[in-house]
Amino acid sequence: MRMVDVIEKKKHGGILSQDEIDFVVQGYVNGEIPDYQVSAFLMAVYFKGMAKREIADLTLAFVNSGDKNDLSSIQGIKVDKHSSGGVGDKLSLVIIPLVASVGVPVAKMSGRGLGHTGGTIDKLESIEGFKTVLDKETFIENVNRHKMAIVSQSSNLTPADKKIYALRDVTATVDSIPLIASSIMSKKIASGADCIVLDVKVGSGAFMKSIAEAVELARTMVEIGKSLNKKTIAIVTDMSQPLGHEVGNANEVKEAIQILKGEGAEDETTIALTLASYMAILGGVFEDFATAYAELDRIIKSGRAVEKFKELVRIQGGNPEVIDNPNMLPQSKYHIEVRSSESGYVSAIDAEKIGLTAMLLGAGRAKKDDVIDFSAGVTMLKKVGDKVDKGDVLCILHTNSANAQEAIAICQRSYSFSTGEIKLSNYIHEIIQ
Amino acid sequence: MRMVDVIEKKKHGGILSQDEIDFVVQGYVNGEIPDYQVSAFLMAVYFKGMAKREIADLTLAFVNSGDKNDLSSIQGIKVDKHSSGGVGDKLSLVIIPLVASVGVPVAKMSGRGLGHTGGTIDKLESIEGFKTVLDKETFIENVNRHKMAIVSQSSNLTPADKKIYALRDVTATVDSIPLIASSIMSKKIASGADCIVLDVKVGSGAFMKSIAEAVELARTMVEIGKSLNKKTIAIVTDMSQPLGHEVGNANEVKEAIQILKGEGAEDETTIALTLASYMAILGGVFEDFATAYAELDRIIKSGRAVEKFKELVRIQGGNPEVIDNPNMLPQSKYHIEVRSSESGYVSAIDAEKIGLTAMLLGAGRAKKDDVIDFSAGVTMLKKVGDKVDKGDVLCILHTNSANAQEAIAICQRSYSFSTGEIKLSNYIHEIIQ
Repeated sequence: MRMVDVIEKKKHGGILSQDEIDFVVQGYVNGEIPDYQVSAFLMAVYFKGMAKREIADLTLAFVNSGDKNDLSSIQGIKVDKHSSGGVGDKLSLVIIPLVASVGVPVAKMSGRGLGHTGGTIDKLESIEGFKTVLDKETFIENVNRHKMAIVSQSSNLTPADKKIYALRDVTATVDSIPLIASSIMSKKIASGADCIVLDVKVGSGAFMKSIAEAVELARTMVEIGKSLNKKTIAIVTDMSQPLGHEVGNANEVKEAIQILKGEGAEDETTIALTLASYMAILGGVFEDFATAYAELDRIIKSGRAVEKFKELVRIQGGNPEVIDNPNMLPQSKYHIEVRSSESGYVSAIDAEKIGLTAMLLGAGRAKKDDVIDFSAGVTMLKKVGDKVDKGDVLCILHTNSANAQEAIAICQRSYSFSTGEIKLSNYIHEIIQ
Repeated sequence: MRMVDVIEKKKHGGILSQDEIDFVVQGYVNGEIPDYQVSAFLMAVYFKGMAKREIADLTLAFVNSGDKNDLSSIQGIKVDKHSSGGVGDKLSLVIIPLVASVGVPVAKMSGRGLGHTGGTIDKLESIEGFKTVLDKETFIENVNRHKMAIVSQSSNLTPADKKIYALRDVTATVDSIPLIASSIMSKKIASGADCIVLDVKVGSGAFMKSIAEAVELARTMVEIGKSLNKKTIAIVTDMSQPLGHEVGNANEVKEAIQILKGEGAEDETTIALTLASYMAILGGVFEDFATAYAELDRIIKSGRAVEKFKELVRIQGGNPEVIDNPNMLPQSKYHIEVRSSESGYVSAIDAEKIGLTAMLLGAGRAKKDDVIDFSAGVTMLKKVGDKVDKGDVLCILHTNSANAQEAIAICQRSYSFSTGEIKLSNYIHEIIQ
């Protein structure tokens, strides 16, 4: 087999065999096929797409390129969750204890963030003492005993995907649905989950800008799950503005606690309950969505959900007092009010710009070894639909740097106003199963 | 400027600025832009094409990447010719003396062949003593005095094109008209010609399989010429079967001599006279095609054309007696008759297979340092349209190897037959200027 022939075939829209896909993936990982052939191939895939079977084969080739987590010693149906990411997305912090509280085991492996804020692991590390590295036995034991554990991803999962992703990043071949879908699903499958719930974000603050695209990505991932015998449900959720009110690390933990107490913003609470409901259904605890949603809502209102989060913090070495007293979380030196220069209804908040504001304040990493300031972040007091008078405080910026001029300016520019009232988007656009 | 942004732009069909094109070409030649980005870019060009202005800019960027021949000390309008190549194409051997005989200076730089047979330079080297390396002074002096000279291309012309061509070859991005057109035109322009006549072959034996594709390539190249102020005429000629009767090296020289004597095959004679006529028109000697064609035909019939070829051989150190006595050219040890196993009319001759036959007999190079056997080749006694009885000789294979079984088999398979008479293709499909 010659790589140039495989590229030629894909260029003309041919359907590659499993052997051809394995040849490409293994050859690239082994160093037998050079970057320049793989990048031409990826561009051909961008233009000609892939058939369902090819995408499943590609996913499997990624899975088979590295280690696979063995979670077989965990009792019950292991359900994993993936979010395509967005500004202010702290849903994993809410969902892990919520789902665990109905007895579904959540063995979560999560990454650190490269971007506007930290990832779930970084956010949790803003809790004093919280350990995100556990030995395998403790991890499994915690899941069996407490139905939950979260660790920083360390094993050599899907190295082929990592190598190909790095190449896509520099060759303008990131935005290909077959490539995105196989990349995400391969990681989830290699992580050892039995079932997967996907949160596919759509809107100005997400990678998928239109509902049609997001639905296509969602369907593609659900199809991969079906082909590889992993029950998968995808939920297309709104990201036309940042989620909730907090963007950062410690402040996102604080907001997660509010949600778990039943005091959270409506958007995040609804999305968290929806995702958790489908996870609980896949985990075999509930039969139908309405029952699951009502029961999980009841668990929040009863205080059991936030207690379960406290339990998570405690068993992973964190200080559980933080849950009752979130002011113990890292606090920044400065709290800068960003005021509105216009009056009207907030018509849009550019999530990218709010993310960039948080990043400038120190909440994220531009490079892999940048240090995150857990206390830095943005609190949005006004969200889309809110009525604002000139001079009202839109946001509070948390920072340890006295010079936040650029962040203030970008934060201000992220708001748009309208004279008339604004119709809000749905929080949930589509459920695909 | 970032290469990834340029790829992204082209991926979406954007029109690149001259700066962007120079950035890509210069960056690649300098080693600042890696192969894998350029190959993704080339695949995007394959899918999205290039606008006229982009193609002209790309051509110029190739020209500017290396040396440019300075032919300004040659008097008159220098007209160059390029053929997109095909099996049995010995037209340069005919055209150089023919055009020179009406006073148009032909300063020809030509390459060696990688493929079924040698290139023009190799073919000429089958003439005893013929020197294809001349110092620059001799080259210029010969053109000024005799209106013709041919040398093996040695200078560092269009290195960017060479580097990109090598990458296209292994990334399935060869068959892109903007890339083919800019590659060809950049070499001709860097060679120093004032005007260019292009022979674009079409048919089963050519790179362009359909007339529509060939016309598109021809138009694209003529447009490049216009944009860069080089008068260019493209002639789309038929290559649905090999040209003439001889395929090889020494035997092609022999056939060229026949054409120059007015004893050549009709297809080759017509195409040679057409190309030469347009060269003479661009060279300012004639006003219209009919006059040019008639005069060049007269020159052939008068014997002056073949005399001019003898003059070329003499001034480049070759033995001019060869022209009067072509049997002095290298002769192979064996002459194997390939006979027909069917009766009927020859309906097609697969030029690729005839080329491969010649290659197997030793007439070509598979690798750069393979040695060509000048005496090896194929003589086709039967061509498309000829009536053949079972047992008739189709071809004679010239070889120095006693074992030619594979060549015989392939040669036989290259012929197809029909019971009814065959309508011949036109020799000339289209003239684009």
